[in-house]
Amino acid sequence: MKITILGCYAATPRTITNPTSQVLEIKNQMFLIDCGEGTQVQLRKHKIKFSRINRIFISHLHGDHFFGLIGLISTFSLLNRENDLHVYGPKGIKEIILLQLKYSNSYTGYNLYFHELEDKESVLVYEDDNVTVHTIPLKHRVYTNGYLFKEKNTQRKLNIDAVAEYKIEKCYFQKIKNGSDLTLEDGSVISNNELTFNPDEEKSYAFCSDTIFDESIVPIIDKVSILYHESTFLESEAHLATKTMHATAKQAATIAKQAVVGTLIMGHYSTRYGNIELFKEEASTIFTNIILADDGKQFEF
Amino acid sequence: MKITILGCYAATPRTITNPTSQVLEIKNQMFLIDCGEGTQVQLRKHKIKFSRINRIFISHLHGDHFFGLIGLISTFSLLNRENDLHVYGPKGIKEIILLQLKYSNSYTGYNLYFHELEDKESVLVYEDDNVTVHTIPLKHRVYTNGYLFKEKNTQRKLNIDAVAEYKIEKCYFQKIKNGSDLTLEDGSVISNNELTFNPDEEKSYAFCSDTIFDESIVPIIDKVSILYHESTFLESEAHLATKTMHATAKQAATIAKQAVVGTLIMGHYSTRYGNIELFKEEASTIFTNIILADDGKQFEF
Repeated sequence: MKITILGCYAATPRTITNPTSQVLEIKNQMFLIDCGEGTQVQLRKHKIKFSRINRIFISHLHGDHFFGLIGLISTFSLLNRENDLHVYGPKGIKEIILLQLKYSNSYTGYNLYFHELEDKESVLVYEDDNVTVHTIPLKHRVYTNGYLFKEKNTQRKLNIDAVAEYKIEKCYFQKIKNGSDLTLEDGSVISNNELTFNPDEEKSYAFCSDTIFDESIVPIIDKVSILYHESTFLESEAHLATKTMHATAKQAATIAKQAVVGTLIMGHYSTRYGNIELFKEEASTIFTNIILADDGKQFEF
Repeated sequence: MKITILGCYAATPRTITNPTSQVLEIKNQMFLIDCGEGTQVQLRKHKIKFSRINRIFISHLHGDHFFGLIGLISTFSLLNRENDLHVYGPKGIKEIILLQLKYSNSYTGYNLYFHELEDKESVLVYEDDNVTVHTIPLKHRVYTNGYLFKEKNTQRKLNIDAVAEYKIEKCYFQKIKNGSDLTLEDGSVISNNELTFNPDEEKSYAFCSDTIFDESIVPIIDKVSILYHESTFLESEAHLATKTMHATAKQAATIAKQAVVGTLIMGHYSTRYGNIELFKEEASTIFTNIILADDGKQFEF
């Protein structure tokens, strides 16, 4: 699992910082999460192939989380994209994008599917053989969802030594990984337990931005491997966090602690702070395993 | 008159080039012309004060000319702008912007006025004591206007030597600049011609992008001081120019020659070309006084 932070600052894009967007690579798929203005340039800068992005998840319709979407969709067209593109986001996102494509007389040459969200409970929005994606209902000034990505590791891992000892041919490997016992030519049966180990631990990633401090998300993100939780402010500006429906560094850490997550990634910093280390300092009093997001950083788990 | 090129490349923003946007400073007013994605960051980069931009002129609703507008409008709000903002552009621009402000629940705190254009003839869209702005109807794949900015130099220039010789007091200067003769205390009259020179030449700037080669604009831009004319392609790709309704370098120069303009600025280059000097080379066979636009360049006239 790899996370590339394309932008992690609140409000307006600046020469040195970018609004929210990140790429989650999980089980060889790339998911784009949020798409602030300038995201397509950030994708180019970090050499992420446009053609590998087939699903885009938008948390909410504030500009710093989606103003780059129409540009990216248009650029996909100019690059003669052929793959389907799926966009998940709040109701309204389809109307906004289609209106602009209508006036520019430039409907996409590829299939563009919108999955508009209105649910107030966590729902499954995407599933394939390798991953599930659920919404995480968040509380912000407009309808907002975080997203919970979970690996599905249904396949057992081959015990290479055992397989070699029994001289089992490659054509049986998939069957064994699926959990089957193996019957040899002499009729004897080798138990699957002898040939495999348990699957890798299923990693998970929860993206929670933007939101107030809201303990009701804790059961949904319980024990996730990685939690990205917004921390727009420090406690010294807690009144602004309340007013603008954002969270402080301490509050982000409190959620991480309550949900017993593996690692907390902090981001969505207000641009009023010159030194983001202050966020880590404040949060470290509550929770220890903390990483600070910053534009261009990549994290592998 | 000063022109700052924020972006002058066609189609998609890249790490090294920006889509169309430029700032025209004329008679101490700043006009923003087009607003591709990333324009607000380019404004910051070139230290142009956001508060000095009160009028934005959008040529057409293709993304590379206006996808940055909603972000700029939103940023103005976040910066607690108080001045009115006037946006001129094709019909539809208001619907697009207001729809996004509605869904983000973030109507502007300042007055935002839209001046939507539908005329097929050149019309006056703005006038004050110092400048007029007319549309230049262009032919492109969607409804498009260029804009013609003209200084109004109605005031005569003081002849400092004459004024000193007659020992005329400062309080009379404005009256003299307005063209009046002056009656001295002894009743004698000094003709205005003795006290003033003709006004400065009225400079003008014509922005023409995007457009096919279209001689019908020549009478509108006749003898402008500066013509910015798109030159998306070279003649070797003239077939693409025809297909996509753009112009070649040679065609831009032909328009400049026919309109007897002072200087031709070329831009809106297709990103297929590695060396923009080729545009100047090609155009120079037709017209001599040529400047190549490039992101970040400033031209004073």
